[in-house]
Amino acid sequence: MTNPLDNIRVVLVGTLYTGNVGSSCRAMANMGIRHLRLAAPNLQNSWEEGERMAVHATDVMESREEFATFEEAVADCVAVVGTTAREGLYRQHVKAPRDCAADILALAAQGPVAIVFGREDKGLLNEEVAQCTHLVRIPVDEGYTSINLSQAVLITCYELFTASGRYEPPHEKAPPAPQAQKMQLMKNWSEMLCEIGFMKPVQAEHFMQGFHRVFSRGVFTRDDAALMLGVARQARWAAAKGGNTENG
Amino acid sequence: MTNPLDNIRVVLVGTLYTGNVGSSCRAMANMGIRHLRLAAPNLQNSWEEGERMAVHATDVMESREEFATFEEAVADCVAVVGTTAREGLYRQHVKAPRDCAADILALAAQGPVAIVFGREDKGLLNEEVAQCTHLVRIPVDEGYTSINLSQAVLITCYELFTASGRYEPPHEKAPPAPQAQKMQLMKNWSEMLCEIGFMKPVQAEHFMQGFHRVFSRGVFTRDDAALMLGVARQARWAAAKGGNTENG
Repeated sequence: MTNPLDNIRVVLVGTLYTGNVGSSCRAMANMGIRHLRLAAPNLQNSWEEGERMAVHATDVMESREEFATFEEAVADCVAVVGTTAREGLYRQHVKAPRDCAADILALAAQGPVAIVFGREDKGLLNEEVAQCTHLVRIPVDEGYTSINLSQAVLITCYELFTASGRYEPPHEKAPPAPQAQKMQLMKNWSEMLCEIGFMKPVQAEHFMQGFHRVFSRGVFTRDDAALMLGVARQARWAAAKGGNTENG
Repeated sequence: MTNPLDNIRVVLVGTLYTGNVGSSCRAMANMGIRHLRLAAPNLQNSWEEGERMAVHATDVMESREEFATFEEAVADCVAVVGTTAREGLYRQHVKAPRDCAADILALAAQGPVAIVFGREDKGLLNEEVAQCTHLVRIPVDEGYTSINLSQAVLITCYELFTASGRYEPPHEKAPPAPQAQKMQLMKNWSEMLCEIGFMKPVQAEHFMQGFHRVFSRGVFTRDDAALMLGVARQARWAAAKGGNTENG
């Protein structure tokens, strides 16, 4: 089956700084997206900084395609997704990237899809926005809405990557403890806490509610229960060896 | 009511490059998070690059706090969230940032919460990870798992910002067109298409199914319908003026 991320084309339009190109390459590679296009690049500095920022994403950097115009860079694409920070003309149907990631991937399963990022200083021009089939705006705080180019590339690619389902989220390796093991733990701790003199048997019900509360705050795994059972076992052994001193 | 984002403390541990500090300041400001702490910074270059990368997030940069140790930097925090790219010792209960953003904000509603980022070259040390109450790992592609420090800050802050509900996602300003308006549109287009000679009345039912399909692909607003009604009106006027030529 086709991986729709392979059909994503990150298109940087009129980019000024090679460092942003390099950082974008690294961000793309982090998110499993590898095809970069530069449309009418307007680079003001040498590629040295770009290569430094790309770090190990040199394959993304080196396989970039360059086009003289916006139109040529997106000509083969079945959808053209523009990113915009501004409101206004042609920009009313903008969506958050998370809200349209699934739609974009569905189109990318059928052909190349351009995700277009404008110039560092003035973004996409109105005539470029008018050619986009989709528009996205990254959620940002009103206090500082201007986001760095490679940071915008990262968030957009991150939303596509997480929506693609190609990443398995980390999960606790140990299974949750079954109730019988937890009850065994409560019983052993209750006996231990009496034996080491932490509490008297008449206080056990009260105190054990407190320990039950502590052990029930979150997921409690088999490993967690085994660890705490070990504590009870060892404390009982030590107390028996040293002599049991109630409330001592 | 307290904004939990005001209780987030971004803690950079042993950071090497001021550029990453500056980029992190900008990323934080973009996501409404303003309190930066440096723990045992190990900076290898001048603040000039840091200030350049912070751009307009100078207030975040200038109000940063510095601490000699990790322990001091997180001492007042009710939760310490470590970010880690690696698996292994102490790192089994790691979660994706999106999956624990709501829990972190709930804690931040009650007190300062540290979000801790390790060194550019080796991340957090095992003894630092062992002091964290929560661990997060950013979803990345297996092909290139090493994410830039400020990019990691951005994604973590972005997940907290979007989970905070302080951002209203963009939405289409025009309401969807009601069915009656759409049926009026179909009727006017059908009449217009006969009048301009695009189709004969006997073909109308067939062709109009095609136009109905085109106009039903996505949300179709009142403004969209008004625009297409205008086309029909003008075409009929032009056709009447120039003389109606069926299939001409």
